[in-house]
Amino acid sequence: MGISLKKARVIVRKTLQAGRDMDLKPLSVIVVDAGGHVQAFEREDGASPGRFQIAQGKAYAAVMLGIPSSSIGNMAIERPHFGASLNAAFDGKVIPVAGGVLIKDRKGEIVGAVGVTGDTSDNDAAAALAGVQEAGLEGVA
Amino acid sequence: MGISLKKARVIVRKTLQAGRDMDLKPLSVIVVDAGGHVQAFEREDGASPGRFQIAQGKAYAAVMLGIPSSSIGNMAIERPHFGASLNAAFDGKVIPVAGGVLIKDRKGEIVGAVGVTGDTSDNDAAAALAGVQEAGLEGVA
Amino acid sequence: MGISLKKARVIVRKTLQAGRDMDLKPLSVIVVDAGGHVQAFEREDGASPGRFQIAQGKAYAAVMLGIPSSSIGNMAIERPHFGASLNAAFDGKVIPVAGGVLIKDRKGEIVGAVGVTGDTSDNDAAAALAGVQEAGLEGVA
Amino acid sequence: MGISLKKARVIVRKTLQAGRDMDLKPLSVIVVDAGGHVQAFEREDGASPGRFQIAQGKAYAAVMLGIPSSSIGNMAIERPHFGASLNAAFDGKVIPVAGGVLIKDRKGEIVGAVGVTGDTSDNDAAAALAGVQEAGLEGVA
Repeated sequence: MGISLKKARVIVRKTLQAGRDMDLKPLSVIVVDAGGHVQAFEREDGASPGRFQIAQGKAYAAVMLGIPSSSIGNMAIERPHFGASLNAAFDGKVIPVAGGVLIKDRKGEIVGAVGVTGDTSDNDAAAALAGVQEAGLEGVA
Repeated sequence: MGISLKKARVIVRKTLQAGRDMDLKPLSVIVVDAGGHVQAFEREDGASPGRFQIAQGKAYAAVMLGIPSSSIGNMAIERPHFGASLNAAFDGKVIPVAGGVLIKDRKGEIVGAVGVTGDTSDNDAAAALAGVQEAGLEGVA
Repeated sequence: MGISLKKARVIVRKTLQAGRDMDLKPLSVIVVDAGGHVQAFEREDGASPGRFQIAQGKAYAAVMLGIPSSSIGNMAIERPHFGASLNAAFDGKVIPVAGGVLIKDRKGEIVGAVGVTGDTSDNDAAAALAGVQEAGLEGVA
Repeated sequence: MGISLKKARVIVRKTLQAGRDMDLKPLSVIVVDAGGHVQAFEREDGASPGRFQIAQGKAYAAVMLGIPSSSIGNMAIERPHFGASLNAAFDGKVIPVAGGVLIKDRKGEIVGAVGVTGDTSDNDAAAALAGVQEAGLEGVA
């Protein structure tokens, strides 16, 4: 399934570190594997209790459609009926908003995604991208 | 319910072939019977893992309402409340976007639908239509 | 995600062939990848329309828990409350009955699962196992 | 809600360490807060993809009822109708099986729970208990 716990841990830590460096609000960070299943998650102190679902929804959306959640967000803005039907087709588990960033390995294959929530969607995505890159992988935001 | 596995297989293969001839992104193709139930499905290498739900939603929508999913998409754009209620009434299994193409037999009876996803919706529909026609059946996109 | 469409097709065909060789009732066969997502599916003529869900539930259960669905069935018999909670925790998508067979590659890694339904559960599993083996992979039933 | 990310991390690591010391199969470990919401999660390499749901269900059950999940398991065995209704009342998120261990602070207040899955339920619970204790907190298994 392509992403080790060791690597996932580094991504989570580097993303949280990026959040602190950027002076963002408390973040929650998930790493899902290439099948959209949770590998690791951490929620910073001060983050609200529902942040797991949001982080998961962003990362899950990215992996299931093979594009970053920001792009899915644009599709949902341009075609609201498509956004609504995606939510429904995936049992409400898709969050079509920036912050779900694809993780690719050196061959360019998708090995999972990071999902970040807590600050503005664009800041969430920036922190996620920084986290993936500092872990030595390619991120697609 | 009117569509044999043998015929469904031909449709899947011809649709995938059409995708390759048109140089489209990796496609996922479903054939559902006249009751909207899965008869055959194939997902090409490189397609994201959530493509089954999208292909199914397009084909299911077409069969359940008896019109191609592109027409349902137009209805959802013109009357968003109707699109939303379709999602709810069909337990989230309807994707009102082009790519769900009705299959008719020689008598003009609907025997099922093909659902395609992977490229733009219009290209998905074009590949589906080509697949149905090359299988010697009539498609309504 | 470890299983190509080409390989999945071979497994489906070999499993259906095994069913015919064993003189079983019409079968439905799914191949899911290592994340539990549909790669290929075929339903033989004469099979009832709800067979997709059953085939999927067997294969999905095997992949999500990393053991063949027959073993999950035994757990559900010994501890019914655990079987019930599995159904619920996985949104009703788990079928804890024989016929969901793990697929391993040469390194022994799980690359997906086959799910078969149509005859007795034990026959379903036997056909699945034969299909995986004839495709040159290791099956765990 | 009483459990810091720093503390949650220590519990996750100590629990995984306990699993390795006890030579258990790959474990998945969740820490939820006093409201049952995910604080941290890690899934070891080799663990099957559905382990998040199971770990969560054990920890969630413990916190929501204020007793370890092993006790809820006993209740479900003695009164199956109660077990079934718990599943329903909590939207399928309750796994009434050993491995969901309450975490108490020095005042004896419940601050969260650990959920562990991967080996036998009893071993899962033993690893969770060890993890909580080595983090300097009181566990109730």
